[in-house]
Amino acid sequence: MNYKKLGKILGKIMILEGILMLAPLLVSLIYKESLTHVLAFVVPIAVLLSIGVLLQIPKPKRETLYQKEGFALVAIVWIVMTLFGAIPFVINGDIPNYVDACFEIMSGFTTTGASIISDITKISHSSLFWRSFSHWIGGMGILVFVLIFIPESNDGSSMHLLRAESPGPKVGKIVSKMKVTTRILYLIYLGMTVLEIAVLMFDKPIAGYEDEQFFFSLLTTFGCAGTGGFGFLPGSMEMMNPFSQYVISIFLILFGVNFSLYYLLLIGKVKDVLKSEEFRAYFLIVVGAISLVFISLLTRFESFPQMYSTEEAFRHSLFQVASLMTTTGFTTTDYHVWPTTGVTTLIVLMFIGGMAGSTAGGIKLSRIIIAVKGGFINVRKLVNPRYVPKVKFEGKTLEEKTLNDVFAFITIYFFLLFLAVLVLSFDPINGQSVTVVSDAGTYTVEHGFFSNFSAALACISNIGPAFEAVGPYACYIGYSPFSKIVLSLTMLLGRLEILPVLILFNPKTWKKV
Amino acid sequence: MNYKKLGKILGKIMILEGILMLAPLLVSLIYKESLTHVLAFVVPIAVLLSIGVLLQIPKPKRETLYQKEGFALVAIVWIVMTLFGAIPFVINGDIPNYVDACFEIMSGFTTTGASIISDITKISHSSLFWRSFSHWIGGMGILVFVLIFIPESNDGSSMHLLRAESPGPKVGKIVSKMKVTTRILYLIYLGMTVLEIAVLMFDKPIAGYEDEQFFFSLLTTFGCAGTGGFGFLPGSMEMMNPFSQYVISIFLILFGVNFSLYYLLLIGKVKDVLKSEEFRAYFLIVVGAISLVFISLLTRFESFPQMYSTEEAFRHSLFQVASLMTTTGFTTTDYHVWPTTGVTTLIVLMFIGGMAGSTAGGIKLSRIIIAVKGGFINVRKLVNPRYVPKVKFEGKTLEEKTLNDVFAFITIYFFLLFLAVLVLSFDPINGQSVTVVSDAGTYTVEHGFFSNFSAALACISNIGPAFEAVGPYACYIGYSPFSKIVLSLTMLLGRLEILPVLILFNPKTWKKV
Repeated sequence: MNYKKLGKILGKIMILEGILMLAPLLVSLIYKESLTHVLAFVVPIAVLLSIGVLLQIPKPKRETLYQKEGFALVAIVWIVMTLFGAIPFVINGDIPNYVDACFEIMSGFTTTGASIISDITKISHSSLFWRSFSHWIGGMGILVFVLIFIPESNDGSSMHLLRAESPGPKVGKIVSKMKVTTRILYLIYLGMTVLEIAVLMFDKPIAGYEDEQFFFSLLTTFGCAGTGGFGFLPGSMEMMNPFSQYVISIFLILFGVNFSLYYLLLIGKVKDVLKSEEFRAYFLIVVGAISLVFISLLTRFESFPQMYSTEEAFRHSLFQVASLMTTTGFTTTDYHVWPTTGVTTLIVLMFIGGMAGSTAGGIKLSRIIIAVKGGFINVRKLVNPRYVPKVKFEGKTLEEKTLNDVFAFITIYFFLLFLAVLVLSFDPINGQSVTVVSDAGTYTVEHGFFSNFSAALACISNIGPAFEAVGPYACYIGYSPFSKIVLSLTMLLGRLEILPVLILFNPKTWKKV
Repeated sequence: MNYKKLGKILGKIMILEGILMLAPLLVSLIYKESLTHVLAFVVPIAVLLSIGVLLQIPKPKRETLYQKEGFALVAIVWIVMTLFGAIPFVINGDIPNYVDACFEIMSGFTTTGASIISDITKISHSSLFWRSFSHWIGGMGILVFVLIFIPESNDGSSMHLLRAESPGPKVGKIVSKMKVTTRILYLIYLGMTVLEIAVLMFDKPIAGYEDEQFFFSLLTTFGCAGTGGFGFLPGSMEMMNPFSQYVISIFLILFGVNFSLYYLLLIGKVKDVLKSEEFRAYFLIVVGAISLVFISLLTRFESFPQMYSTEEAFRHSLFQVASLMTTTGFTTTDYHVWPTTGVTTLIVLMFIGGMAGSTAGGIKLSRIIIAVKGGFINVRKLVNPRYVPKVKFEGKTLEEKTLNDVFAFITIYFFLLFLAVLVLSFDPINGQSVTVVSDAGTYTVEHGFFSNFSAALACISNIGPAFEAVGPYACYIGYSPFSKIVLSLTMLLGRLEILPVLILFNPKTWKKV
């Protein structure tokens, strides 16, 4: 391990986090919050900047980073960001417990959106801003952010970092120089963010929150862009006007698209976009899932009372499908009580996730497509043992190695998911009754296997809200500190796509070289 | 497709099924059942023998079978066996609906043990015998059975058949000649069957069923040996005396072991058995799971009342773990109400299944071990890109191809599982309340996602009883005929390990060559 070099990059990230925290500090000042609230950001900023600068002093003997160092660094960076990012919540008292605060901000950075806050109305503006802002930062990746602004050696170290942090089986190189690529992607990200804020401002304000429209538009957009989904009003997006709910749905779907496709759009290659297999599959699945859910809501024969008009049923289908497929986790209604077809469709979407190269989590659509093609290849090999696969994906022949990596990834994904579910089953919360108050009425559920299964899935796929005792109108506060740490790690596993986190547990990673 | 040759083999299987049906016919005569009950077996026997003989007439141009034909044949054989095996239930009126009857006997042959019979006390002796006997036949494989007794060409065709039907990633060749191997395995199977019947006869009879002891011992042993698990008394094995429950548990664990290990034991290679990684893992998981469940039952803080003495808690832990890990599905208590740790442990076991080369279903332990090793290899490759894996399994270097096949298998297993869950969600039964009467009391559950998820899992892993609305004290009768066909196919997919069934859906399989 090249500790000095690692320390240097880590220091830069800490300085960056300190700078980013100026934004919530500003919010705190604008809303004339108490001195404690202001200090809640001033103190960590001071600490981050000091340590960050100190870490720049040692001179590393080697300037380059090996692949394993790159991958381990990414995981370390995310953990350190979380440990410091949690401090403000503890100081200002919004989340007094440090483990809870770490859970919350890890959920923020990983764009999960799982929350331990049971009464969102008691949270200060600066805290609300910081947690939603963390989605926006985490969505595109923290190191990617650094790579744009800080000059790095041109030796491939940066490529390792980007590979570890980028969602999807492959990093697409749009233009030859990586830094240029990254800047273009970030510009698209920024542009879409500004656009969504602007469009949301066209709506009439939510009754009772007339002064907050810009603030809310900001938070909503952070959640959409990073596909994070922290709510800031009781019932997530339930109180939003239908216009905003439609706007959000559309932007959610847009943020689940591979950003490289927007670049292709910008340079006029519309045909290439329409030819993308992953894009077509994405479009088909979104439309298919909305139809399935919509029909099941209209023709429901299940025991729960009919509660939507046709327009509402359509809007809620659209919104929930858009939100869960892109692994965002905003909600407009209590989908937990939906007919089984609706519930099952949403769970399947939670596994699939968005497109590779988007800010969404989950297994990623491209991996699902590759795995399905791989399944057909296996059948064909059985029919004809001399069959040499010439199957293509996105115009290129699917390499054996890609296929095997995808199968391995999905297998490990399921293994880790069920391992987490097993660990969560030890939590004393199991068997307890939880009363849920939602737009579907008041009912009681028991915390059990389905709660844990959906919670672990919602964390590894970076979604947030799950089902049953951790459904859209409940929160994660009831879990023990140990379970919260396990769930936080699960989120990180999901966000960094498993291997960079697992590498931390390999002793050889820490050997001096 | 070499249809004539296929027809010839299929015909032989039909003759065999006809002969096997003489056993329940005999039972029917012994218990002096009505004429309808006797005819219920006489008619299909006549039909099977006639068609079987007729199919021997055409002379195939080619005597050999290609790989694809072998695999397709296996799936066809199982389907045909089911279509004819269901007839007796319809004629004697024990299961009047033909789809239900097919579900029941498919569940029998695939050693699943999922039942659609809601009141088992109304079923005739001959029907009870036929369904349990089908476990015993299906456990070792139908074609394997044929290969022993009917001379086949020595061109490798038989190897294709055996490969398609044998559980686990590889067919272990104990001795050079396959037919000898198969005979030895069958002899071991037979020997253990006789031993279990004998030991069970030592118990005192169940109160009220004094005359039935031998009959029940027979049925119990069929269920254990094939790891099938059809019950024949209300509440599966609940009424059995503790002695029998312990005996059954031990035999269940024994039948989940790779049969090749018994051969090694027989020829005195005890050390080789103890060195087997899969065997060690199996032993550790069984002990670990029993401990987990046992502790969770003793220290339960959950809402359901404490209902076991310490001895009972231990016995039920042992029995349920043995039964679900070996994918048998006998039960002695209502595990659905167990603490979440108990439930989750059982669900994880339902995925894992028994050892390869046993009669058990599930993903199979050897695949789980290989996949975990594969996960570590991937992490090590990341730490050192030039790392060449020299990982061993059972003393042999793990080949890249084996590893990739295992990852592919597990991925497809999960995909098909969730596909089945999605299809089941369309069933009108969802949302309906089901009242369960069990040793834990009377309670109501709603049929929903968890019911479907566990049902699909119980079918693809060939277990039988699931959770919630299809738990150990419920049955599958409520599903629509469509869902029952889907579940039957899911059982077949699980039993034949996916590819032989999928190959039927590939048009190229049917091309004339």
